[in-house]
Amino acid sequence: MTHPIEVVGLDADDTLWHSEIYFDRTQRRFDEIVGRYVDPEVDVHRVLTAVERRNLGRYGYGIKGFTLSMLEAAIEVTDGAIGVEEVSQLLAAGRAMLDHPVELLDGVDEALTRLCDDGYRLVIVTKGDLHHQELKIGASGLADRVERIEIVAEKDPATYLRVVASMGVAPERFCMVGNSVRSDVLPVIEIGGRAVHIPYHLTWEAEHAEHDGSVPELASIAELPAWLASLR
Amino acid sequence: MTHPIEVVGLDADDTLWHSEIYFDRTQRRFDEIVGRYVDPEVDVHRVLTAVERRNLGRYGYGIKGFTLSMLEAAIEVTDGAIGVEEVSQLLAAGRAMLDHPVELLDGVDEALTRLCDDGYRLVIVTKGDLHHQELKIGASGLADRVERIEIVAEKDPATYLRVVASMGVAPERFCMVGNSVRSDVLPVIEIGGRAVHIPYHLTWEAEHAEHDGSVPELASIAELPAWLASLR
Repeated sequence: MTHPIEVVGLDADDTLWHSEIYFDRTQRRFDEIVGRYVDPEVDVHRVLTAVERRNLGRYGYGIKGFTLSMLEAAIEVTDGAIGVEEVSQLLAAGRAMLDHPVELLDGVDEALTRLCDDGYRLVIVTKGDLHHQELKIGASGLADRVERIEIVAEKDPATYLRVVASMGVAPERFCMVGNSVRSDVLPVIEIGGRAVHIPYHLTWEAEHAEHDGSVPELASIAELPAWLASLR
Repeated sequence: MTHPIEVVGLDADDTLWHSEIYFDRTQRRFDEIVGRYVDPEVDVHRVLTAVERRNLGRYGYGIKGFTLSMLEAAIEVTDGAIGVEEVSQLLAAGRAMLDHPVELLDGVDEALTRLCDDGYRLVIVTKGDLHHQELKIGASGLADRVERIEIVAEKDPATYLRVVASMGVAPERFCMVGNSVRSDVLPVIEIGGRAVHIPYHLTWEAEHAEHDGSVPELASIAELPAWLASLR
């Protein structure tokens, strides 16, 4: 019998390599820098989240938009009292995030090698900033094991239909793997594909999703080859 | 005899719609805001260009990276003397660029309709920020006349080989159209395709290219259908 899955889609940030920890770290730096200028009861973190959310349609995903939102939030929440020195520090924090080397999650290298050996065709499907994602994929050392890289503006059912079409398979033969139920699991199930959730210990607020608990979940990407092999 | 060209590649910024005029306008606003803080002999514009250039590998193309470079340059050239109010104005100028409605160049709508009627398959090939380019393509009203949209990080020969492969044609059957000799013409000729230059009245410094003058050039996209029809 033919194995049901031919193509495995892999999310990148927080599935193949660390990403949210750098946002988290920079946000804590933001809280510390900006917190000096406001009353202790002001939740600067909440203001940053609100500014990010209001700019999401304009900036999309990624570090550059996040940095611009940090600056806007810093000026807004301090009513312009923050200094240019601090603005400069926040700009530098954004650059440091972009310059950070790619750190693969544990087990990624071995799992991808195994998936290739098992005959799956791999495609990376990732949101975010085109330029930065291409830099990271290049630096990851994983590009040669992957047939295609799709850097997309939104992970919705229409996008996944485009991805499976570009790989030349029916949705039933496609399985997506990622840390976001909202982006990596639900829209794939909607088009008739399979999906598995591998949680990361941090989830960006905009990625939180309600679901009924029936979503398959693995503790680590190391378990992926065996899980895929068990599918019928 | 079959017509030699089957697929027409179209650059977007300053080929289909205006883009550089907004950068130019914002740069003049930068010169005005930042110029108040420095000696009249300091060329603030030159500093901005240098900061943009040094960040290009990190930020890539697009308005968000340009805005971040404006802020960095403003702080650097004024040695931190610029105020947070001005930082806020520069941030707002960047947002205004992103929010600007798409303005098609004269003749684009008619030319694309004509190309479709003439049986060419169209693909948009554009650099820049994925999220913003998708917004602009959506707002342009042109998406339904185009078979594929390729938003790429770099316009080099490898990228164009990928584009022609994704369209399923040989390079000889592909003709690229754009306002940049460096990005739209030379790499396409290098892979054995055809290309035609339609200059825009402003060219971003990083797009300037030396060439021997043999590059075909049209004054307007309105001339494109007849020029393509004349190819043998």
